[in-house]
Amino acid sequence: MVNETMSDLLSPRPSAATRFVYDFAEGSRDLRELLGGKGANVAEMTRLLGPELVPAGFTITTEACVAYLRDGSLPHAEIAAALERLEAAAGRRLGDPVDPLLVSVRSGARESMPGMMDTVLNLGLTDDSVEGLAAGTGDARFAWDSYRRLVQMFGNVVRGVPGERFEAEIARVKRERGVALDTELDVDALRELTRAFQALYDFPQEPGAQLDQAIRAVFDSWNGERAIAYRRIHRIPDDWGTAVNVQQMVFGNRGPTSGSGVAFSRDEITGAPEPSGDFLADAQGEDVVSGVRNTRDIAELRDWLPDVHAQLMGILRRLEAHYGDMQDVEFTVEEGRLYLLQTRTAKRPAQAAVRFAADAVAEGLLTREQAVLTIDAEQLETLLHPTFDRDAGYAVLARGVAASPGAAKGAIAFTAAAAVARAGAGEDVILVRPFTEADDVAGFHAARGVLTSEGGKASHAALVARGMGVPAVTGASEVEVDPDAGVARIGDVVLREGDRIAIDGTTGAITIDDVPLVEPAVGGDVETVLGWCDELRRLHVRANADTPQDAARARALGAEGIGLCRTEHMFFGAERHERMVRVILAEDDGERDAALAELARLQQDDFEAIFAVMHGLPVTIRLLDPPLHEFLPDPHALPAGSPERARVESLQEANPMLGTRGVRLGLLHPAIYRAQVTAMARAWQAVAPGRRPSKLEVMVPLVAYERELELARADIVDVLDAHGLRAGADYLVGTMIELPRACLQADRIAAGADFFSFGTNDLTQTALGFSRDDVESRILARYLERKVLDRSPFETLDTPGVGQLLRMGAWLGRKGNPDLELGVCGEHGGDPDSIAFLSESGIDYVSCSPYRVPVARLAAAQAALRAGG
Amino acid sequence: MVNETMSDLLSPRPSAATRFVYDFAEGSRDLRELLGGKGANVAEMTRLLGPELVPAGFTITTEACVAYLRDGSLPHAEIAAALERLEAAAGRRLGDPVDPLLVSVRSGARESMPGMMDTVLNLGLTDDSVEGLAAGTGDARFAWDSYRRLVQMFGNVVRGVPGERFEAEIARVKRERGVALDTELDVDALRELTRAFQALYDFPQEPGAQLDQAIRAVFDSWNGERAIAYRRIHRIPDDWGTAVNVQQMVFGNRGPTSGSGVAFSRDEITGAPEPSGDFLADAQGEDVVSGVRNTRDIAELRDWLPDVHAQLMGILRRLEAHYGDMQDVEFTVEEGRLYLLQTRTAKRPAQAAVRFAADAVAEGLLTREQAVLTIDAEQLETLLHPTFDRDAGYAVLARGVAASPGAAKGAIAFTAAAAVARAGAGEDVILVRPFTEADDVAGFHAARGVLTSEGGKASHAALVARGMGVPAVTGASEVEVDPDAGVARIGDVVLREGDRIAIDGTTGAITIDDVPLVEPAVGGDVETVLGWCDELRRLHVRANADTPQDAARARALGAEGIGLCRTEHMFFGAERHERMVRVILAEDDGERDAALAELARLQQDDFEAIFAVMHGLPVTIRLLDPPLHEFLPDPHALPAGSPERARVESLQEANPMLGTRGVRLGLLHPAIYRAQVTAMARAWQAVAPGRRPSKLEVMVPLVAYERELELARADIVDVLDAHGLRAGADYLVGTMIELPRACLQADRIAAGADFFSFGTNDLTQTALGFSRDDVESRILARYLERKVLDRSPFETLDTPGVGQLLRMGAWLGRKGNPDLELGVCGEHGGDPDSIAFLSESGIDYVSCSPYRVPVARLAAAQAALRAGG
Repeated sequence: MVNETMSDLLSPRPSAATRFVYDFAEGSRDLRELLGGKGANVAEMTRLLGPELVPAGFTITTEACVAYLRDGSLPHAEIAAALERLEAAAGRRLGDPVDPLLVSVRSGARESMPGMMDTVLNLGLTDDSVEGLAAGTGDARFAWDSYRRLVQMFGNVVRGVPGERFEAEIARVKRERGVALDTELDVDALRELTRAFQALYDFPQEPGAQLDQAIRAVFDSWNGERAIAYRRIHRIPDDWGTAVNVQQMVFGNRGPTSGSGVAFSRDEITGAPEPSGDFLADAQGEDVVSGVRNTRDIAELRDWLPDVHAQLMGILRRLEAHYGDMQDVEFTVEEGRLYLLQTRTAKRPAQAAVRFAADAVAEGLLTREQAVLTIDAEQLETLLHPTFDRDAGYAVLARGVAASPGAAKGAIAFTAAAAVARAGAGEDVILVRPFTEADDVAGFHAARGVLTSEGGKASHAALVARGMGVPAVTGASEVEVDPDAGVARIGDVVLREGDRIAIDGTTGAITIDDVPLVEPAVGGDVETVLGWCDELRRLHVRANADTPQDAARARALGAEGIGLCRTEHMFFGAERHERMVRVILAEDDGERDAALAELARLQQDDFEAIFAVMHGLPVTIRLLDPPLHEFLPDPHALPAGSPERARVESLQEANPMLGTRGVRLGLLHPAIYRAQVTAMARAWQAVAPGRRPSKLEVMVPLVAYERELELARADIVDVLDAHGLRAGADYLVGTMIELPRACLQADRIAAGADFFSFGTNDLTQTALGFSRDDVESRILARYLERKVLDRSPFETLDTPGVGQLLRMGAWLGRKGNPDLELGVCGEHGGDPDSIAFLSESGIDYVSCSPYRVPVARLAAAQAALRAGG
Repeated sequence: MVNETMSDLLSPRPSAATRFVYDFAEGSRDLRELLGGKGANVAEMTRLLGPELVPAGFTITTEACVAYLRDGSLPHAEIAAALERLEAAAGRRLGDPVDPLLVSVRSGARESMPGMMDTVLNLGLTDDSVEGLAAGTGDARFAWDSYRRLVQMFGNVVRGVPGERFEAEIARVKRERGVALDTELDVDALRELTRAFQALYDFPQEPGAQLDQAIRAVFDSWNGERAIAYRRIHRIPDDWGTAVNVQQMVFGNRGPTSGSGVAFSRDEITGAPEPSGDFLADAQGEDVVSGVRNTRDIAELRDWLPDVHAQLMGILRRLEAHYGDMQDVEFTVEEGRLYLLQTRTAKRPAQAAVRFAADAVAEGLLTREQAVLTIDAEQLETLLHPTFDRDAGYAVLARGVAASPGAAKGAIAFTAAAAVARAGAGEDVILVRPFTEADDVAGFHAARGVLTSEGGKASHAALVARGMGVPAVTGASEVEVDPDAGVARIGDVVLREGDRIAIDGTTGAITIDDVPLVEPAVGGDVETVLGWCDELRRLHVRANADTPQDAARARALGAEGIGLCRTEHMFFGAERHERMVRVILAEDDGERDAALAELARLQQDDFEAIFAVMHGLPVTIRLLDPPLHEFLPDPHALPAGSPERARVESLQEANPMLGTRGVRLGLLHPAIYRAQVTAMARAWQAVAPGRRPSKLEVMVPLVAYERELELARADIVDVLDAHGLRAGADYLVGTMIELPRACLQADRIAAGADFFSFGTNDLTQTALGFSRDDVESRILARYLERKVLDRSPFETLDTPGVGQLLRMGAWLGRKGNPDLELGVCGEHGGDPDSIAFLSESGIDYVSCSPYRVPVARLAAAQAALRAGG
């Protein structure tokens, strides 16, 4: 019943026989978990290119890290043995005063983690051996430059001495010597600098101690603040640990035929088939990445060292073909000889990823299946929204959470009403609020973008905005919003209603500059790749769309139907809202029915427009779900003692999420559902038969008991049949499964349902007892920090809890009704990790916001491929 | 995984071979479901006593009723055949003009249902046959009296003619004839009356039509308004249907040696071994129950007809022995000959039930096991509270829901503060509110009783009151409470603060008379019977107790420990509340810690007192659970714009039930739990070793993730170990399982828990998505009416949903930790039906409010016996 059991938890302590150290020549890319990404790749590269092109070395495993973090132990004997083998291969000894072996020490986790300690170069130099190196190479300046780099890096990276203190010394020496560039410092200056650095901390003169401390520092950095923060953001488990790579040094700083660089097997921005990259002559690797010196484009390497360039281009092609993916390599040229230090899959923006996939298939490099798996599904959405023009100059005034992708600019409106008014007057509007509530949703419809000072990725504002495809930046805590005063403050800047602002929901940036927006260029490659995905995936993809605009966008992005059309949003327009208030506050049935009839006529128009857009595809419409009081004003805003206030107060609930909503409301006031279904039926009949949806799927929300659905269904069928719609052929009646009880009694409920749609948002709230609005803002950060959670359960499905309930519901549902159609319409329907789980759970389709449809198409294909489907 | 499947639902339609009619001589008590209670018992009695003592007849089954209600069909052929057999046995024919057979027609469901059509007597008489009866018996008055009774009953019961219209005719004729009593009406008067009755409606002159219509009327009455209402209250399923019994008439109105009566095999009020009952000479059965004439005590039968009396006493003993339970019979004496018309298990008050059980064992009539099963567990609680003196005269001013048993009187307080103040001054107080909230709980502690105008059995007021054992009447809608004005109105009566009032939570009665209260006389019989229960049951019984007073009461009532001590109630006393506010609103950690330390000192006193009371038994203490804002004032009551209001507002949550409470709060502010555990540890050390509880069980609420418990546990163990308590020996650390996710991941959570206590209140709320406060008041009535529910899931466990989760949690929990102790501490722990389910679910103990402890002890024993344990 529950897939994971206690035994999963009890990972045994490594036995005495466990190996903690592997030579590069022993590893391979398959050992990524053990050797880390860097260690596995350098080993793979050693196998592929041979030891002549890859300096020798060894990897201390991630398991050694886990053991160290548990009890402080290091595998000293194995490290010593590996070092001896390295010394034998190099023909040099670490710390040898005459001809010292120098090594680099680098961290390397399973996934690249910029938050961690990275690299110490030239390890092995001491006050003695620096002289040996100078004598042996005949290049005293090189020797002392290498040594001062070691002392600087070791101090900064291993000992945590602030980098500025080293920079200050360099600046002082340059000033005293009257030189401008580091390269102009002579041997004396470098020697003086090294001494000055050594005065900043206690640099160990014993190379074994250097190695030991560097290894410990790498392991300790796994639990450094920045690494933990990075893991949180990138969802990397805390128990992976990092490996350490010890590699023989080669030197890019050995004169005019030496250099260091990075290269991509294709253009890193566009994905075009020409390699890109940068290099520096007479420099070590960290000079390239530090940006201290201006690097040169990799194309210039051809003019400078044509043989090396040709060799590098060949190696890039070979690596790309071997890995079946774009590669990003580090290389060093030592006195005209090329060495590869590491290779990895190139991180690239979505457009480059898509182009690579398309080209790789065209070139015969990859199959479609392989190509589809090279793209990061989560990233794909960024392709589909406008963004700030990268090339335009603009000042970022503040940053918030990138809550809903896309950029937007417009006049500030501090209330939904103001947003509606300004938009009505033809203005572009940004809705700016401390946070948002249901009352504000009309403002979302009117606004180009939303900015809040509170709430994260799962706040109401973020969820509604993503659902509507409206760009949003949330939780911008530097922005002080006071809607009552009509003022927002960002530092010294005071913004008032109507002032212009721009937000980028893809990056979280906020500016008041008039930055140009760049429309997305969704090229043919995206279409091509998503076309392959459609052939490969098992899971269908529908969209959550409440308006004809959303529906059209969804269809254009490949949605195969509407999986969730929320009818309550249709009650928030100005004239509709007023009628809805009359429905709720009606003194008698006559007044209520009249207001309902008017609303039904308006809803009919909405449905007609949506039906017309979705012709030939299924449209699932959910009956009214939220508690009635959500449509009403704050009672405290009404005169105390007034009958209106009393009525509004009587509708308030302590826990509206668990209150009188969904089918409960439907059974309490059957006229509401009947009016809605009448509107659907009339819309159906108003649309020409050939232009209708393939099916109208009427969805009853919040069912816990089979009898609830039975009663609601009887009314729905009654109305639809009376309007001439044919059960099965024209319409289905189903229910949202969003309560734990419904999952457990799904067989009984399914007996009266044509379809289920799992509402995983509410199912998460009830299964976890976690109110999205309340808990995410107060608890989530603490829970991530204390490792209770590694991500929000509202972003990615909580598989052990919510996922189990969903699978039970799916299984029992099909048991009760073998023809049952199964969908998922929560936020999780657009999340790649959740899609992978759902694809294996017997679900027929997911439904997500229109902009997530391409993401879901890709993720569904990847899930099918990974499952071997 | 789910016990019940779809196939349970598909009860087949009765096949053509199904028999719908049984002669009394064919049935037995085992056929109760088919024949109804009355039919099964009269058949059993026929077998036992022989046809001489029981008039012959037949039963039309409950299945016939179900078929009739589905499609209007009646088993005409079978009825005709059974009637023929009856006519043959009686030697008379229905409708015979000379010597007619007369029959009674009575409804008889599985459970007695006073809400239904009951009885038509003398059926078969017509304008013709009444003359034959007169001639045959030589008693024209008897014949016409019988006929006018039939026409009256048939009109009223079968045709729905209002009873007053018949009464008006009787009154008119008596007036015109100048007589006072019915018995003074002569033949002419009775004939006139019969004609007058026949003018009120169309009385059928065809006996077959009379029988057909009477049978249909009985079946139709199953769906009558009163019957449905009765079923709701008594939880009788709607699909049972009722049987119809057709029995040959015998006549108690045949003169001075005739009569009718009812008799109990033991005293119906006290259970004492002397039979009780009433009879009337020269009367039919309905005269006895209608109360029109003053009945005589059954003892007087001895003087009047000593042989009949002796025979009846013998039969009562025989029936009681045969049924193994107190019997309640209807009898008729026709011209000196005794007939038994029906027998059934006597309904009796709790004291009689207990006395019967005790005596029956002493007499050797029943085994202990059998005796224990004769008592209604639910009823037992009424024995343990004071009640209004039945013999005192008092006017019931209004009635509400009998929400928490026991009677109380005192001065009215409209606010918790006023209640505390008056109680502090030594006054008895009744807290009177429209409804109650967490803020009012201090008032519950201070008050003798609680009265609310809103809310039902599961309202906040009812739950808290029951939990504390404070008598309460809720939902008294005739009482208009205006706390702001300090006034309550009941009709014309205006009550002000300090006026005296009395409530009886056992009956729902409200009075302003100074009615004396009768203390419960819990005699030795209760002790005896509960002692047997303790030997028979498998389930242990603890109590929910927050104060030393509750703990002492619980222990006195047989609790084997405290299963739930809620620490938050300890924060509601006046000085404590003020400190708690300081904890929450503290500007800095120092201020918060100081306030917490003071609270911890006060809590230590509470714990010491509870420990002292519970020496030798386990005490489970739950750490702080409710959201912080529950301790705070309504923000709207604070000055707008004040920092206090802003802070209070920032703590408000949209759905506090799903918000920052329980362990979430504990992890957000670890100092709170540490302070509470410190108080426990110090209290432990302050009590002499020999006077300590057997174990301190520290309970972490609202755990969803194993890591939450792991973190909380680390702190708890840290504090307790530092104070010298020994894990396992002195204390356990466990968790409340009250979220669906916790049930699904119980194996992992159990790995870090010594015990689970299922919080079935919250588990019900989350599994069903049902907020108790919000939904019970708005939805429950509609759901009962529309047959979605047959009872509140907060009263009796929802076994298909919540029960399944609980069983999964129990099973997985034991899988994760075979030594895990399992308890249930929701309201359901005191509900007999829920206890029956829990007893079969691997639970070790239930914990309920102190007054429910005896109920739970009895119910647990019954569950074990019924399971064959």
